[in-house]
Amino acid sequence: MERSSAIRVIITGGTFDKHYDEVKGSLTFKDTHLPEILRFTRCTVPIELELNQLIDSLEMRTQNRLQVLEACRRSPERRIVVTHGTDTMVETAEVLGRAALGKTVVLTGAMVPYMVTNSDAVFNFGCAVTAVQQCTPGVWIAMNGRVFRWDVVRKNRDLGVFEPKEEP
Amino acid sequence: MERSSAIRVIITGGTFDKHYDEVKGSLTFKDTHLPEILRFTRCTVPIELELNQLIDSLEMRTQNRLQVLEACRRSPERRIVVTHGTDTMVETAEVLGRAALGKTVVLTGAMVPYMVTNSDAVFNFGCAVTAVQQCTPGVWIAMNGRVFRWDVVRKNRDLGVFEPKEEP
Amino acid sequence: MERSSAIRVIITGGTFDKHYDEVKGSLTFKDTHLPEILRFTRCTVPIELELNQLIDSLEMRTQNRLQVLEACRRSPERRIVVTHGTDTMVETAEVLGRAALGKTVVLTGAMVPYMVTNSDAVFNFGCAVTAVQQCTPGVWIAMNGRVFRWDVVRKNRDLGVFEPKEEP
Amino acid sequence: MERSSAIRVIITGGTFDKHYDEVKGSLTFKDTHLPEILRFTRCTVPIELELNQLIDSLEMRTQNRLQVLEACRRSPERRIVVTHGTDTMVETAEVLGRAALGKTVVLTGAMVPYMVTNSDAVFNFGCAVTAVQQCTPGVWIAMNGRVFRWDVVRKNRDLGVFEPKEEP
Repeated sequence: MERSSAIRVIITGGTFDKHYDEVKGSLTFKDTHLPEILRFTRCTVPIELELNQLIDSLEMRTQNRLQVLEACRRSPERRIVVTHGTDTMVETAEVLGRAALGKTVVLTGAMVPYMVTNSDAVFNFGCAVTAVQQCTPGVWIAMNGRVFRWDVVRKNRDLGVFEPKEEP
Repeated sequence: MERSSAIRVIITGGTFDKHYDEVKGSLTFKDTHLPEILRFTRCTVPIELELNQLIDSLEMRTQNRLQVLEACRRSPERRIVVTHGTDTMVETAEVLGRAALGKTVVLTGAMVPYMVTNSDAVFNFGCAVTAVQQCTPGVWIAMNGRVFRWDVVRKNRDLGVFEPKEEP
Repeated sequence: MERSSAIRVIITGGTFDKHYDEVKGSLTFKDTHLPEILRFTRCTVPIELELNQLIDSLEMRTQNRLQVLEACRRSPERRIVVTHGTDTMVETAEVLGRAALGKTVVLTGAMVPYMVTNSDAVFNFGCAVTAVQQCTPGVWIAMNGRVFRWDVVRKNRDLGVFEPKEEP
Repeated sequence: MERSSAIRVIITGGTFDKHYDEVKGSLTFKDTHLPEILRFTRCTVPIELELNQLIDSLEMRTQNRLQVLEACRRSPERRIVVTHGTDTMVETAEVLGRAALGKTVVLTGAMVPYMVTNSDAVFNFGCAVTAVQQCTPGVWIAMNGRVFRWDVVRKNRDLGVFEPKEEP
């Protein structure tokens, strides 16, 4: 049974959770930083963390997106945040959006890993946690301080920001 | 004339903006960290920063709160974030709430200064920036991942968290 | 029996180890950050940590300095780093220096707490760990990238730096 | 003419100075972080920064090492720190060591970039700045809190630490 205001956070990896592997000398995945983030942000909303996958979103295939969709379907909480790589966040949002889940799903991520100086990860997570409590059922993307409906947003790869598909 | 989606951030200091003064060996105010924060969070919402005062909220008097109220009144933007010390955030929210401004005002702050490890400042600011775009006109407090209406919230000083005045 | 190259680190607190107490809203002592620092600096020199006291060096009395002296005397390691507040570091160095311990003792500290952005704590600790292995027996202060003998150094309180007592 | 105690820092890049490129989503070089590091470490030793190259040490060829050697030769300062990738730091140290420069040269680097949480860069730099002032002329490596002569050290790639070539 759903706790009225609880949020499920479905973790898929992305730049947000990348980790510096000092033996390989490169950015890889090891574990999620969300438990640490929940601690110091002093978030009192009940949050269920679910490690769905740890993957660079450029390497996501249909199967990976269906795995996210399935987790959203199974979620007893009707408010869901999905952490996701930015490169194909819009594609996964479309898969979730077309599924008509009847839940509020907010995707977010980061341009710079949480572990790197000047990361946008914690700011974006704050935006997503708030958006998921305020928005009506549907699928949304929270990036750059804005909240976009899944079908009217694109990533501008040159600028590294999310923007409306058609300028208003 | 108001730009449709612009946000005014009215800065009053508080723990959020405290700075370590290495000569005095204590936390004081020097300047706001908001311009730096806006840069690395990659926020694309148009934001006007207004340095209203830099003060510990325990030292705020009626005059200080009226100075915030006046800034909210003058603001051409109808969406306003106020950074504020947590100790008397509820008192200032009440002054703004009773004034019936017809604007959306969200107060936020931090339990740990932005300059200190494990600060909640950036997370809270992300929450406030999102809340101010989603909430209806009125006065709100965004802390601990939650958004409270000004007249139903209090700070629990023992736990260091904001909570509903009467448990629902 | 002494391990040939081992170092004892005697911790006394000072700005180095100050911690932000979010309930009091001020900088206090809670515990030392040295175990964490030893981990991420990947220091492979055998190091014994000894928590001697956690105190602001402005509040140190004769008894506190004798407690440091006693710890240096008891130390089986002949190479000792003392973390210490900067305000009376020179006074404690004098107490240790006059005691003719026949060991190499290096005092260090920080102008900005380890927990605060742009701290000099980790840099200074690196300097002290290296100085204690390189210097001859005697008492030294490692601050500002320099190593001073205890009897030719003073803290310039206006500039917040350590400097030779008589300019060379 | 040499200022008596001045240090030249010859920058070659390495993990120490790697930067997160948010468009490419990978670690590359953009600029050195040494000016920033010198500021917050409050180092009062006169330091000349020289940007020699910005390169991953795995990609260093003979020509790159000769470029470092030439910079050491030209240096009016007789105390030189070289920041360098760890993977071939020993090889460059050998080139410098065999050249019998008559100067004190200390190579250092980092296992984790300065820009990444829990970096060893600043600690190692503190070690190197101190070692270069304490060591006799010759070529040294300062890593893991230890100072090694160039011809008795190797990098243990499995553990990611520097160690004596033959255990003492």
